[in-house]
Amino acid sequence: MPAATFAVEVAPPTDGSTRARAGRLTLTHGVVETPQFMPVGTNATVKALSPDDLRDAGASIILANTYHLYLRPGHERIERLGGLHRFMDWDRPILTDSGGFQVVSLGDLRVVDEDGVTFRSHLDGSIHRFTPEVAMAVQASLGSDVAVAFDQPVFPSSPRPLVAEATERTHRWADRSLAAHRRPDQALFGIVQGGLEPDLRAASTRFIAERPFDGICIGGLAGDETPVQRGAALDVAIPLLDGDPRPRYLMGLGSPADLLDAVHRGVDLFDSVLPARVARNGQLWVPADTDQGGRLNIRNQRFLDDPRPVQADCPCLLCRRFSRAYLAHLFRARELLGYRLATCHNLTFTLDFMVRIRAAIRSGTFPATMPELRLRAGPVSRGEVADKSA
Amino acid sequence: MPAATFAVEVAPPTDGSTRARAGRLTLTHGVVETPQFMPVGTNATVKALSPDDLRDAGASIILANTYHLYLRPGHERIERLGGLHRFMDWDRPILTDSGGFQVVSLGDLRVVDEDGVTFRSHLDGSIHRFTPEVAMAVQASLGSDVAVAFDQPVFPSSPRPLVAEATERTHRWADRSLAAHRRPDQALFGIVQGGLEPDLRAASTRFIAERPFDGICIGGLAGDETPVQRGAALDVAIPLLDGDPRPRYLMGLGSPADLLDAVHRGVDLFDSVLPARVARNGQLWVPADTDQGGRLNIRNQRFLDDPRPVQADCPCLLCRRFSRAYLAHLFRARELLGYRLATCHNLTFTLDFMVRIRAAIRSGTFPATMPELRLRAGPVSRGEVADKSA
Repeated sequence: MPAATFAVEVAPPTDGSTRARAGRLTLTHGVVETPQFMPVGTNATVKALSPDDLRDAGASIILANTYHLYLRPGHERIERLGGLHRFMDWDRPILTDSGGFQVVSLGDLRVVDEDGVTFRSHLDGSIHRFTPEVAMAVQASLGSDVAVAFDQPVFPSSPRPLVAEATERTHRWADRSLAAHRRPDQALFGIVQGGLEPDLRAASTRFIAERPFDGICIGGLAGDETPVQRGAALDVAIPLLDGDPRPRYLMGLGSPADLLDAVHRGVDLFDSVLPARVARNGQLWVPADTDQGGRLNIRNQRFLDDPRPVQADCPCLLCRRFSRAYLAHLFRARELLGYRLATCHNLTFTLDFMVRIRAAIRSGTFPATMPELRLRAGPVSRGEVADKSA
Repeated sequence: MPAATFAVEVAPPTDGSTRARAGRLTLTHGVVETPQFMPVGTNATVKALSPDDLRDAGASIILANTYHLYLRPGHERIERLGGLHRFMDWDRPILTDSGGFQVVSLGDLRVVDEDGVTFRSHLDGSIHRFTPEVAMAVQASLGSDVAVAFDQPVFPSSPRPLVAEATERTHRWADRSLAAHRRPDQALFGIVQGGLEPDLRAASTRFIAERPFDGICIGGLAGDETPVQRGAALDVAIPLLDGDPRPRYLMGLGSPADLLDAVHRGVDLFDSVLPARVARNGQLWVPADTDQGGRLNIRNQRFLDDPRPVQADCPCLLCRRFSRAYLAHLFRARELLGYRLATCHNLTFTLDFMVRIRAAIRSGTFPATMPELRLRAGPVSRGEVADKSA
């Protein structure tokens, strides 16, 4: 049995109204219905949550960060302890990223050469080196369901020569990642780069699509680009994957409004720390068709006396059991329970939003339902700029 | 129905081998088997835990701090929101302390006069005043099952004139607390003071025992006294309560070895932040008859590779699902889940220890079982000096 099989169960309509599709990705540890969102468990834990909390929130797959786990506690240690699933007691699928983004964004010092990247640990200043072969070996030790090829991401706004150079290097590293990939129970996704340059994005999409990857990551977005720029880049890449039987994964996107737009353009998978991070800062996501315009800042004074749940119809631990007043109190007292409850809620909201998207696609009403979904998604606020670091 | 009924179901043996007894305290929100330990939920949350976590750990009653809740979020606010049980979603009994200890130990400034105490909030520097009447009104607003009379605690090592003055004032405040107590669904416990002076301790015990309180708190201990001094003070007070049909509650004690000794001397109820606080610092309590001598410092390097559970036969979330290695990793990465798991464990250990004590008393084998229980309790280490503040 292959490490990943993907079935597009509802193809986009032929009228061109949307490229949204519904699929089923079968991995070693279970099935992932797409479009799907992956909560991020940077340090082998989704911050503030237990595995049961994640299951209750509806998570079917999570992402773990190769860079962080390589540095601490160490991939070889995790392998000796039985692999990442056992280590963190999560028995559903895990995707590990390649580490490429964190090496470039978190390393204090980084020197990229043709062979790989030398960087200094953000934890203790020690010097390390990642190559495609190292990234594959680390992910093999972790034992994730899906590994990702080692790439060289650059900011979307980077000058064209830099984008071109990084994209070409990413292609050479993609082939080396493929050659270094060993585990038959682990799928391997390749990464498309190309920044915001249509010709580079198109060439990169073709290059990666020609290789025997199990899925196609769309990298170098969810950074400092505008939503319009992101949409344009997707509209270059996705049509080139038309008829391609593999899942498409846009790395680093997490705002519901952004997810909706990207699904419409044909993306199947997402990950982001955003819902959890803003939750820990006291921003609760609620349907924008109710009060608060989709964002509720629980640190606001007025919630101290509000006996209502954060979201009346939400099945999460916070909304079933506690009031806005209690959560507001926990945040003011910096009580740890507050961070857990808020994170439970935002992940439940985000994963429920994906359920609604999938239901609309499966019932053939996605284009008609988009205005309603967009209303529910709420605004893309300034405080929600995507950031893939932990 | 009275707000509290207490039945001594197993009286101490007549041979004088122990004063340990087993009882059943029935309160408005449920039954508490004694001897019993109360986890402390200072800010209307036992730090890092949810109410379900507390139930899973075996908690049948918790303590909440009147001083903290008065300052934040405010007792009147909690009352408007339906009372403390509803606010924090805990449907089992709650005991609130009087605030006396925190007013004296946490207030930046405090002036004690015959009428009450003026103090400055440790949160924002604002000036407040507690009197017996205020303490009763605040606890009535919170709606705890058990309120405690307002007292003036002093350190056990205080000079005799100071102890004498504070003890006499505590007596006058006890009568004022009784007079100010209103809620028929709320029990009221009085507090014995008297420091380490046998005659003052005895006089205070007699004074409080003569009043119609529902239970007797033994205050002014679990501070800077030695275990021998504490034992001597208990051996003055408890015999004077022989035949008294009310529960005896030693405030602020939390180390298993201390709990065992105090049960032996006839105490029924305890509270302490200790098990939870040391857990958040990475100290895990395990039976001292296994490895580690009863204390396991999860920050120790060697646990990073230890695949075993913290305690093999423990039913807590941590021990059922995760390894020492994972917990050690969570602590090094300062991940919030680590604090929750460690707290779940130490409270499970402590409450299970009380189950074992009760079982030994009920089977009539408590004196014979004490060596085994003492071994399980482990040492009273330097890092575990009792501290009743939050």
